[in-house]
Amino acid sequence: MTNSSEVTRADRTRARLQDAALSAFAERGFHGTSTRDIAAAAGLSPAAVYMHHSSKEELLFVISRAGHEDTLERVRDAAAASDAPSVQLAAVTRAFARHHAEVPMSARVVNYQLDALSDEHLGEIRTLRRLIGSEIRDIVDRGVASGEFTTPHPQVAAHAILSLGIDVGRWYEATGDWTPGDVGDYYAELALRMVEAR
Amino acid sequence: MTNSSEVTRADRTRARLQDAALSAFAERGFHGTSTRDIAAAAGLSPAAVYMHHSSKEELLFVISRAGHEDTLERVRDAAAASDAPSVQLAAVTRAFARHHAEVPMSARVVNYQLDALSDEHLGEIRTLRRLIGSEIRDIVDRGVASGEFTTPHPQVAAHAILSLGIDVGRWYEATGDWTPGDVGDYYAELALRMVEAR
Repeated sequence: MTNSSEVTRADRTRARLQDAALSAFAERGFHGTSTRDIAAAAGLSPAAVYMHHSSKEELLFVISRAGHEDTLERVRDAAAASDAPSVQLAAVTRAFARHHAEVPMSARVVNYQLDALSDEHLGEIRTLRRLIGSEIRDIVDRGVASGEFTTPHPQVAAHAILSLGIDVGRWYEATGDWTPGDVGDYYAELALRMVEAR
Repeated sequence: MTNSSEVTRADRTRARLQDAALSAFAERGFHGTSTRDIAAAAGLSPAAVYMHHSSKEELLFVISRAGHEDTLERVRDAAAASDAPSVQLAAVTRAFARHHAEVPMSARVVNYQLDALSDEHLGEIRTLRRLIGSEIRDIVDRGVASGEFTTPHPQVAAHAILSLGIDVGRWYEATGDWTPGDVGDYYAELALRMVEAR
């Protein structure tokens, strides 16, 4: 049995560990980071890390799952705002690109360090990625079916729209004279051009 | 003094080392790879590695420089094929995206492991990246000046076109039902839509 203040303390410790791990993975990569590094950055002993996470790989998985679940939720919320594919595609692209500009460090770890996950964990993350991708593909397909979009290549167009958003995590910090909102708004326009919206 | 067969042998050894390092960096990341791993994969002793490269970081730099110089040359060759910005933009985007689909492993190491370079080496690579980016930006700017392109945001449009090509290195192997040539041709079309070509 734990009382509520103990639960809160454990949650806070886990959050601190995940923040420390995210910064370390972003800076030195998963393989270049030791559990000891993460513990030190979070102000804990290595033994304390293992009380909360069974391994460094599990920490990466927890971070990656949270990042993908967050993105999936944002994408679904944006898609739910309308029934019209062109409005949905603009809203989803805007939310996706904007969020990658807001948390570029997280976006890089989540998108570029998948190879470090165990097969089982990678499978779970790939399922989340497919769900995110299929939200966009479904919108493009429905737009093509209704005649709003005229692209002859809806699948690859959807892929390219995802690429635009994902790559924001790589370039945004270096050349950030646009706000995340500016990037989102412009990328929403680009997405409509890419699917050849009427 | 070396005779030509000795030069050739040294070149071959260096090429073997670079291939081994590229595979290792792609699979385990720079920090997760030891000089010993690279030596073993190339069939050499760790001491032999240091005869050719002063450090593991220098190997990454040599690989990264060669990849960027190769891309710059392809982009410049494609741009030289015409004076018309729309033809140039299609040719450059086609060459860039196609090449990233042809060598996705190299594309990932070259684009996503820059943080492991020393400041001096990173500076050299950033110069090459700026030259690649400015080839595309110059074409977009000239297209806007001539009225062929009507985008109000030429700089960010150029950035987004680069993003499309770079991200091919991340997704292409997983979903490669298109040939590299197909990807290049379609991305050339997308680029013209993104700059709002007349």
